[in-house]
Amino acid sequence: MAKEKQPRKPRAETPKGFRDYFGADVIERRDMLAKISAVYERYGFDPLETSAVETVEALGKFLPDVDRPNEGVFGWQDEDADWLALRYDLTAPLARVAAQFRNELPTPYRRYAYGPVWRNEKPGPGRFRQFYQCDADTVGAPSVAADAEICAMLSDALETVGIERGDYIVRVNNRKVLNGVMEVAGLSGDDKDAERGIVLRAIDKLDRLGADGVRALLGAGRKDDSGDFTKGAGLNDTQADVVMGFMAAKRGSGEETVARLRELVGASKVGCEGVDELETIAALLDAQGYGPDRIEIDPSVVRGLGYYTGPVYEAELTFEILDEKGRKRQFGSVAGGGRYDDLVKRFTGQAVPATGVSIGVDRLLAALRAKKLERGEAETTSAGPVVVTVMDRDRMADYMAMVGQLRQAGIRAEMYLGNPKNFGNQLKYADKRGSPIAVIQGGDEAEKGVVVLKDLILGAKIAESATLEEWKDRPAQVEIPLADLVAEVKKMLAQ
Amino acid sequence: MAKEKQPRKPRAETPKGFRDYFGADVIERRDMLAKISAVYERYGFDPLETSAVETVEALGKFLPDVDRPNEGVFGWQDEDADWLALRYDLTAPLARVAAQFRNELPTPYRRYAYGPVWRNEKPGPGRFRQFYQCDADTVGAPSVAADAEICAMLSDALETVGIERGDYIVRVNNRKVLNGVMEVAGLSGDDKDAERGIVLRAIDKLDRLGADGVRALLGAGRKDDSGDFTKGAGLNDTQADVVMGFMAAKRGSGEETVARLRELVGASKVGCEGVDELETIAALLDAQGYGPDRIEIDPSVVRGLGYYTGPVYEAELTFEILDEKGRKRQFGSVAGGGRYDDLVKRFTGQAVPATGVSIGVDRLLAALRAKKLERGEAETTSAGPVVVTVMDRDRMADYMAMVGQLRQAGIRAEMYLGNPKNFGNQLKYADKRGSPIAVIQGGDEAEKGVVVLKDLILGAKIAESATLEEWKDRPAQVEIPLADLVAEVKKMLAQ
Repeated sequence: MAKEKQPRKPRAETPKGFRDYFGADVIERRDMLAKISAVYERYGFDPLETSAVETVEALGKFLPDVDRPNEGVFGWQDEDADWLALRYDLTAPLARVAAQFRNELPTPYRRYAYGPVWRNEKPGPGRFRQFYQCDADTVGAPSVAADAEICAMLSDALETVGIERGDYIVRVNNRKVLNGVMEVAGLSGDDKDAERGIVLRAIDKLDRLGADGVRALLGAGRKDDSGDFTKGAGLNDTQADVVMGFMAAKRGSGEETVARLRELVGASKVGCEGVDELETIAALLDAQGYGPDRIEIDPSVVRGLGYYTGPVYEAELTFEILDEKGRKRQFGSVAGGGRYDDLVKRFTGQAVPATGVSIGVDRLLAALRAKKLERGEAETTSAGPVVVTVMDRDRMADYMAMVGQLRQAGIRAEMYLGNPKNFGNQLKYADKRGSPIAVIQGGDEAEKGVVVLKDLILGAKIAESATLEEWKDRPAQVEIPLADLVAEVKKMLAQ
Repeated sequence: MAKEKQPRKPRAETPKGFRDYFGADVIERRDMLAKISAVYERYGFDPLETSAVETVEALGKFLPDVDRPNEGVFGWQDEDADWLALRYDLTAPLARVAAQFRNELPTPYRRYAYGPVWRNEKPGPGRFRQFYQCDADTVGAPSVAADAEICAMLSDALETVGIERGDYIVRVNNRKVLNGVMEVAGLSGDDKDAERGIVLRAIDKLDRLGADGVRALLGAGRKDDSGDFTKGAGLNDTQADVVMGFMAAKRGSGEETVARLRELVGASKVGCEGVDELETIAALLDAQGYGPDRIEIDPSVVRGLGYYTGPVYEAELTFEILDEKGRKRQFGSVAGGGRYDDLVKRFTGQAVPATGVSIGVDRLLAALRAKKLERGEAETTSAGPVVVTVMDRDRMADYMAMVGQLRQAGIRAEMYLGNPKNFGNQLKYADKRGSPIAVIQGGDEAEKGVVVLKDLILGAKIAESATLEEWKDRPAQVEIPLADLVAEVKKMLAQ
């Protein structure tokens, strides 16, 4: 006789590639986003919060990796057989909104947004399928003053959250300059689209592959360590030299770099336009006091995305951290963006100039944590609550009254709500919660109208240093009149 | 010859049933959630942010409408053929987290969470497929002190966001009392599960259907205005009388209500237990000063959800608003919750007591807006930026420098980034942005080293009242030295 099968219990698991954020992590991110938002608002940007779901049609084929259009999103069909999907970034929804509400929104429209985005990609170490972005974009401003403004704002935002000047650099370049260089290298024309794409992505990998690796990708191609072969752009040596020269065009000052770029783009009209724009950006930033210690022109910045049409920019953190193998390396990029003039056009047929930046929220948080560690500061933890212990199950109302008083005084406090039988468990709980003070009142204390305050921070310090000597002036617990509860707790918290 | 078909442009549309939030709406919600979070944290609750995506297996069949398990979510299959879905509330993910991290989390675990949830339901007026919830739950606390605490916290949260005492009431009841009443009515036992479900949902509709409607649903059934028939629980008159008596058991004071409930549950063990718990909750709340002006026992509260096992509670706003037909009606429920002891058990096999509340964020925001309107207060708008106009395209750097100064002084400011040719458009833009001040500097002013500040708020007031009389002491625009820009703008903003 077959045994009746017990239905399998569901697995309690975060789905693969997703993660949960607890306590201090949530607070840390929320605080950082509040600081960035304040900067964005000071710059005149208004918040926008679109829904997480878009029609696949509206999202379009603008996924970062242009080789795989329509892949990479989480999508499903709704009851009308229309395809819906989770947004993969905050730019595509903005383009949709800018088109949909073009008659209601001011022009130019400055908006910022933050929130999760979703990518249906293979998860890996540090690579998740849901992560936060924080974007600011200006739609409808043809002037590169809009790009300059965003670079300045990015610089302010980084300093406001705690990245010190000198620990970061915002690098600016212009796709038009690169296009000019490609023209000079004989790579213009529609039939060279694929080659230009390969060149673009090759330059974007300079950091990772080094000059030789990029050079290989400009030519026949490159075999990586695993033996996989990536097809190159097929440029001859003369052509490749032009492109390599572009990447190395950075000079000691912005003027010199601009001068060098002007040489490289030669007679290319688009190239000259690009160089002019870079000059304007530099002048506008200078007028506001953003010098090359914060924002500099760097021709090696191209940004991988295909849709950029003008200025591109990137914020890099320049301090060193130890990687997983203990080697020093620069922290690297935490934000990037640029000008994209065709995203809104998809919907309306009319070109709408737009430019914007996206901050990688989780990377920036990681950087702040690394800096804190370096400075020897404590990790952010949420302050634990004062815990009122339960000595006598029948007097819960009394304990609740104490908690009520503390809370009304603005003090984070709670009554122990687990099984009160084992008092040790209550103190273990307080410890796990990072509680600064335990409040204790047994029958004797209740009769006398007193409570005992146990200083748990002191207790932890004593346990750590293993000597009471330095703490002997500070009692680990005190008995106080119940009427003084709030005042005494406040005093102890202020110590 | 067939014409070549132009590919259709994608539609720029928010997907059906979804919505976008702009500017002040985003800020308003963010501020309200920050205030609620502060209350929750003071009560010792820690934030948790789970991913939006869960396995369908983990979400389970706990959708509010128990008649349609596994429907109502947005789901899809991942590459391993596992089904994933967007969370439909914040309780199911909490149950998953409580099971998954049971060895790391403190017990009891107090957590709060807010964020969007998604329902794959037919959208309707005011009914969206993505909306915000803000929840607080205590997992692992068997004592009804945890329920009492959440009721007190809910009361504090409502007052903190701006609902005045007297404009709301938190009602508490206990499912065990209802179960006791059902026992008395002869509706106990596993074979009466369906009937009990119908009774539960019928009572929950008292507000909407009135006593007669509920009575019909307790008996044979009810035909609604559209002619649709809902099958009833099939109770005979005696049985229905018992249930109806339960709903009407509320008396002038908590003690009297409790006494009446004790009569109704008679010898039912679970019923008596429920009445005892209600008594305890009332006493605990009383000890903290939460009287019946804030929190009261009300037997007509049952909450529709099947999973509640003990105390249930609900916050109702008692002030009247005008509905879409201009009739006065009470605003109604904005939050609700209760004790659910079996949600974690699904995963672990071990029953884990839990209790919690969910605030309907959008409804509470609507209520706050209605109250503001009633008090004649202005709608929340984000303060518009000071707009530096562009009189001379070649002097953008100068204008940017002014904006830079204002921003560094913490003043929200921007340069006009649209096409500057038509100056009227610049002022129209400033108007649309709700800008308080336009800064103007043409060639003449630049030569003299001055700027003109145009008071746009005053301008709007003059336009409104159509008489300059009352404003004659306050000039609509002033010419000031450029060096005084920040100081003068500050002065004007402070007026």
